[in-house]
Amino acid sequence: MPRWEAGARDRLQLAALDLFASAGYERATVAEIAAAAGLTERTFFRHFADKREVLFGDPGVFDAAFLDAVAAEPRADAASLVQAALAGGAGFFPDERRAWSARRQAVIDATLALQERELLKLSGLAASLATAFADRGVPQRTAVLAAEGCVAMFRTAFAEWIADGETRAFATIADEVVAGWRALLATG
Amino acid sequence: MPRWEAGARDRLQLAALDLFASAGYERATVAEIAAAAGLTERTFFRHFADKREVLFGDPGVFDAAFLDAVAAEPRADAASLVQAALAGGAGFFPDERRAWSARRQAVIDATLALQERELLKLSGLAASLATAFADRGVPQRTAVLAAEGCVAMFRTAFAEWIADGETRAFATIADEVVAGWRALLATG
Repeated sequence: MPRWEAGARDRLQLAALDLFASAGYERATVAEIAAAAGLTERTFFRHFADKREVLFGDPGVFDAAFLDAVAAEPRADAASLVQAALAGGAGFFPDERRAWSARRQAVIDATLALQERELLKLSGLAASLATAFADRGVPQRTAVLAAEGCVAMFRTAFAEWIADGETRAFATIADEVVAGWRALLATG
Repeated sequence: MPRWEAGARDRLQLAALDLFASAGYERATVAEIAAAAGLTERTFFRHFADKREVLFGDPGVFDAAFLDAVAAEPRADAASLVQAALAGGAGFFPDERRAWSARRQAVIDATLALQERELLKLSGLAASLATAFADRGVPQRTAVLAAEGCVAMFRTAFAEWIADGETRAFATIADEVVAGWRALLATG
């Protein structure tokens, strides 16, 4: 048996999402997910540590969309780096991913264990962004604030992007959220 | 047996923190926590749903420190409401709570299950703040961004407040963090 099945990861994620949506997260088992994907439990566990991980994929790939953009941004002030990070993150969410993302989020929002795992992943992204900003010369506290703000803006843009009937591209929404964020801080 | 033991909540939290720090979160049992506090398991479960909850206390009381300040703030622009919320939150962290908060945070940071629960609590605070800001007339998206930013600033200020050797009051640090946040957005 080969150690790698083409598309196994994607098939497992799709099967898991279907099962979580129909049977509920708690009742769905890894064996059922693997069977629905036409794969074995062994294969499942080569890709994911446990059931809780299956919807999250490889955080390295997701985080890299933001971090690579930070590394490539020529300007080194915090606001420009935040904007670059969000634009990079937008690249992870092309329009053809929108329906999947919306279905996936509905399952996460309905499941406490998955909500917690998602928050932990985003917390990890914030920590990586803070390090990336600091590496670009942003002072430590500013780097942490910028990173937390960046993740907050990402979550806001993402929620709008997957809303019913929304058609704007992720990048367009992200730009509007950044503008709104700046306006917010300019007042008061 | 009375349904309420004086200080039971505090005693259970203190006992739990001691046990988590010495035996580790996973190994400590509710029975041991209750025994160390001189109380019964029944009493534990009157106060906390499970072991994972014991360090978090009543989120209503914590959140109210922020939310009451928002309701009482005369100015209704988002930046002023954020500042008011943080000043209110600072009231929850007098200097005499600092040592406890630092010990508690060290245990949380060392335990994935507690990190996740903490993130969920803070996410709940952000949602409540967004509603409170919107109730004061802040537009929806701005309210969400302001709430997420507020929680990010809170976390940043809190981390500085419990750092080794730190002596500044929480409110002082929070003011500095707000100023840094504004400066961050003003550049770029």
